[in-house]
Order: sequence, then structure tokens, then C-alpha cells
Amino acid sequence: MRALVFDKQLRFDADYPEPEARAGECVVRVHLAGVCSTDLEIVKGYMGFSGVLGHEFVGTVEQGAPEWQGKRVAGEINCVCGRCDMCQAGLATHCRDRTVLGIAGRDGAFADRLVLPERNLHVVPEAISDEEAVFIEPLAAAWQVVKQVPIEKRMQVTVIGSGRLGLLVAQVISTFGCRLEVVGRNHHTLSLCEKRHIQARHVDETPLRADRDLVVECTGSPAGLELALGLVRPRGVIVLKSTYADAGSINLAPAVIHEVSIVGSRCGPFGDAIASLARRAVEVRPMISRTLPLERGAEALEAAADRQNVKVLLKINPR
Amino acid sequence: MRALVFDKQLRFDADYPEPEARAGECVVRVHLAGVCSTDLEIVKGYMGFSGVLGHEFVGTVEQGAPEWQGKRVAGEINCVCGRCDMCQAGLATHCRDRTVLGIAGRDGAFADRLVLPERNLHVVPEAISDEEAVFIEPLAAAWQVVKQVPIEKRMQVTVIGSGRLGLLVAQVISTFGCRLEVVGRNHHTLSLCEKRHIQARHVDETPLRADRDLVVECTGSPAGLELALGLVRPRGVIVLKSTYADAGSINLAPAVIHEVSIVGSRCGPFGDAIASLARRAVEVRPMISRTLPLERGAEALEAAADRQNVKVLLKINPR
Repeated sequence: MRALVFDKQLRFDADYPEPEARAGECVVRVHLAGVCSTDLEIVKGYMGFSGVLGHEFVGTVEQGAPEWQGKRVAGEINCVCGRCDMCQAGLATHCRDRTVLGIAGRDGAFADRLVLPERNLHVVPEAISDEEAVFIEPLAAAWQVVKQVPIEKRMQVTVIGSGRLGLLVAQVISTFGCRLEVVGRNHHTLSLCEKRHIQARHVDETPLRADRDLVVECTGSPAGLELALGLVRPRGVIVLKSTYADAGSINLAPAVIHEVSIVGSRCGPFGDAIASLARRAVEVRPMISRTLPLERGAEALEAAADRQNVKVLLKINPR
Repeated sequence: MRALVFDKQLRFDADYPEPEARAGECVVRVHLAGVCSTDLEIVKGYMGFSGVLGHEFVGTVEQGAPEWQGKRVAGEINCVCGRCDMCQAGLATHCRDRTVLGIAGRDGAFADRLVLPERNLHVVPEAISDEEAVFIEPLAAAWQVVKQVPIEKRMQVTVIGSGRLGLLVAQVISTFGCRLEVVGRNHHTLSLCEKRHIQARHVDETPLRADRDLVVECTGSPAGLELALGLVRPRGVIVLKSTYADAGSINLAPAVIHEVSIVGSRCGPFGDAIASLARRAVEVRPMISRTLPLERGAEALEAAADRQNVKVLLKINPR
């Protein structure tokens, strides 16, 4: 099959081995996949991954239990053991022995076919197009923020970063009716916020008043945390969404002095993501900047690294 | 009066101006003061402070309202406005217009006399000696940890750093009967833990199992946070107690991946600190390494920077 493979370097492989499903797993033919900042970090060495990249997808089950055959699905990326202390404690996304689709120990979605356990799959309702469904995984990660920090109407919330993830996080938070602002550098993506009636501001015009109850850091750079520490109020909360390959120099003294909580946040609930897309509470189509065929995967990753683009998709197979 | 002054450099001044009390304030004659790591950081440039150093003390009220006259007191260090959004929200230690004794905008305790508002003062019960009372302020900071993260018996807790602050934090946490371990580098201070029946371990013999529910970082160095991230379990909590002048290079990706919460923690409740000293739940006297007269303040700061010493005190006036 065709696959976009990273193994110290990135290459398109027209004849990569077909994945094989074990008991309880399904083979999914991938329609469309999304490029995420994590893919760009992996190519820089993050996670030490080698294999097929990609973890955001929509596709159709080709092989598996009869009840799954032919179903259009999105998939959770953490494949878990069910036995370790984390799984037993109900924290399966933190399974000690997990593999992660296209990130750790398991080939990913930038290929004709992928394999995931049945328990990871979610049927995509007809109300959601393929172009929208490919956002289910990152949108679930955006929902995770509000699962970790419940949003109240009286709260003042700032999302830093108006890129792929920031735009999703902002839209999810906006459904809670709090006072919300997005701070970014890109006039185009900031204007996408305004179209969704979300207040947007350029970072250079953002005073550091230390008055926000919650700041969600979605910039993908250590400088984002520094800015967040200037925006958040004493005893406020910063949610960190970005991971990156490099360590950054950061002075955490303000977090101690202001008794700020910094909360790491990763994967989230697919149910909320699917429901919010289906009821049009979140609009993802304006975020699609480019769609390229799998053969041009390397170009797609380059395009995704260009801040002028928001979401870059890979068209892999027809629905 | 005599004072140990920092103004770009440290100097003993035999003729520093007497402090003046305003309405609602008291003049306190200082008996004994403690050297804190924050003092050492200030001398490196932290907080940009200039003035009389020192914020841990016990003394006697010399001037003030009649009901305070002659009382032996310890004092909270944040002097607050009572009007700003933080004060109105009940977060007075985070007052926007605060001065902080010996740290920000207010002369401190390494002097014959200091001035604090009455509302900052706490009478020291007779059951507590001066040598113990000088620990009330840092012990209150240790109590703050358990106010921010309630300790349950089932929890596995690690305190990193067996210095001044770590020993106090560990003793406070040990009163809650959870599974507690102190990790440090100094065999002497680790043995002080063991005398208090607190499990202690050298950092080189500490496996990074990512299984601790709570890790309290008291090392005063960015490396402590890195270690904490290796010890804490997914969705666990790290409390950061140390502030330092320099930014450190740190990779926070593990905090995001493991959805760890990092909670900054500063000043704490004097009532709990005084009560725990009075009922002998916490033992501070074995922590006193040296006691020097105020005139040898510079030497005291050097001694406090030497990791072979735990607490260094300045004897300023007789009780």
C-alpha cells in the first residue's frame, strides 16, 4: 500500500506492507487525514518515532467484526492494555503499555489502510462530512480542556495561539458563554475567530494585566507559556496543549509567586467532539487551507509548517 | 539602628534609619531572624529588591496599639491594600499593591526593628521558643501545600529536596499519614527525616517510575522540576515551592503527555504553623545549623548557601 513514512527522514513509500489486524482490531481504509503540529514535531525528532505518520483520519472499516464492516469511522489514537495501573484506575489514555497511532509504536493514518482496536472506533454520523470528520480527533483534544477545567459563565478566558488547535479550543470554549478572547499573530486566523463572534486580538496589542481566570496555551512554543504567565490572574489556571521536541528556557517564578496552576492536557472525548460537529456548534471547514494527495505528503507537511496555512489535509482514498 | 542592607551589594549598616509606623502598624523589636533561600536569590538579583533583607522573624512589639504592646509576635509578610480585585476576592496574599517584608518595597527583619501592620501579626504562645518561632513563616509556607492539594491517606507523596523548606513540607505532610518519601542529596538532612520516621532516599537511588500522586518540588533549582516530572504519575500533581532568579531550560512535554498539574505555592496559613509547633507535630530545632549575630549577616548568608547547613539564624536582640 501507499504510505508516508518517517524513519529518521520522511519518504513516500508506494509499496509499504499492509497492516494486519489482530483479534478485536479492524482494518480501516483511510479517506482523508489531517496534518497536526505533532507530526511536524515528530519529523524534528519528538517521541523518537519511526513508521507511518498521521493520527487524524476518517475512513471506512474494511476488515473486522461484522457489525463494524463498512462503517465510516474516526478513531481514538491510544491503544491500551486494559491491565496496567492506569487502565485499572480508569485512566486508559495514560496506559503504561500503550501504542499511539502514528506517534508511538504503531503505524499511523497517512497510508491507504491502518489498524485500530474496535474499542477505539467511533461511527461518524451522516450529518458530518469527511472534511469535518477528520477534525474529530483534534476537536476531542480541544474538548479535553473543558473536561479538566470546568468553564463558568463569569470566567475570563484567553486562548493563546490562533492556529489549528487554538481555533478548535476557542470554539469549544465559546459554547459555554464565558468572556473569551483569542490572542494570536496571524490576521487571517484571528479574522476566522471574529467570523465565529469570538473576540480576537493581536499579541502585540495584548496588555499583560494578570487578570484572566484561564489561559489555554496553544502556540506550540515555550514563549506561549511565558505570555500565559503574564496574562493569568493569581491563583488562575493555564492549560498547556502544545508539545514540542525542544526544551525551552522558562522562568517559572511567576507561577510560584502567583500560585498559578499549569495543567497539561492531551487527548479528549470523541463523543463531545462528534456531537458538537453534528449540531454545528463548531465550524471547521473554514480552517482547511489545502488538500493534497498522499503522494505529496512531504509537501503537505511543509505547508502545515507555514503559519499562513491553518489545516492541511491529505486526500488518500475516495469515500 | 543596625541593619543588613542589600542595594546592589550586601552591607551591614550600624546606623540605618529607624522605621516609622503608620496608623494601624506596629514597630517590632526583632529577637531572632531566619535566612531563607529567597534572601539568597535576592542577593543574586531576584525581585530587584533593595533595602533591609529578611522576612522570617520573632520579636516583641515596641510601638503600636496598646493591646499589642509587649506582645511576642511572628508576622505575615504580605502587606496589602484591602481594596484591589485580589483583596476583594479574598486573595489578599496576592494583593496587586502589596509590599512584602524584606522582598518587595518594604524593609525587612534583618535589623533591630521592623514595621508591619497589626493585621499581619500573630502572638506566639509561650509553648513555642524563639528558636522555634522563627520557623513560623516558612512553616506556614509548607502548610500552604496541603491547603492547595488536600492529602489523603491513600496518596503516595514525594518531597524533592531535603533542605530548609523540604524538611518543613515533609513534616507537615507526614501529619496526614499518607505514604511519604523525601528525596535529596544530603545524607545529613536525609537522616533528619529518618529521625522523624519519614522515609528518605538519595536522589541517585530513586527510580523514575511515574507513580507518585503528588510531588512537592523544594530543591530551588530547575532540575527539581525535571525530576518531579519523572516521578509523578499521569494526572498527578506537582507543587512548585521554589523561586529562583534564573530561568531554567525545561521540557514541559511530559507534563502535557501525562496531563500533570503543576501548582505554584507561596505563603501560607500562620494559624496552622503555630498550632503544629505548639503541639510538637513539627520539630524544627534539629534544623538549626548556625546562629550568628546581625553584624555577621553576610557570613550568615554565605553559610545558608552552603548545602551542608540547613537553617542559619541571626541573633539580633535578646528576648
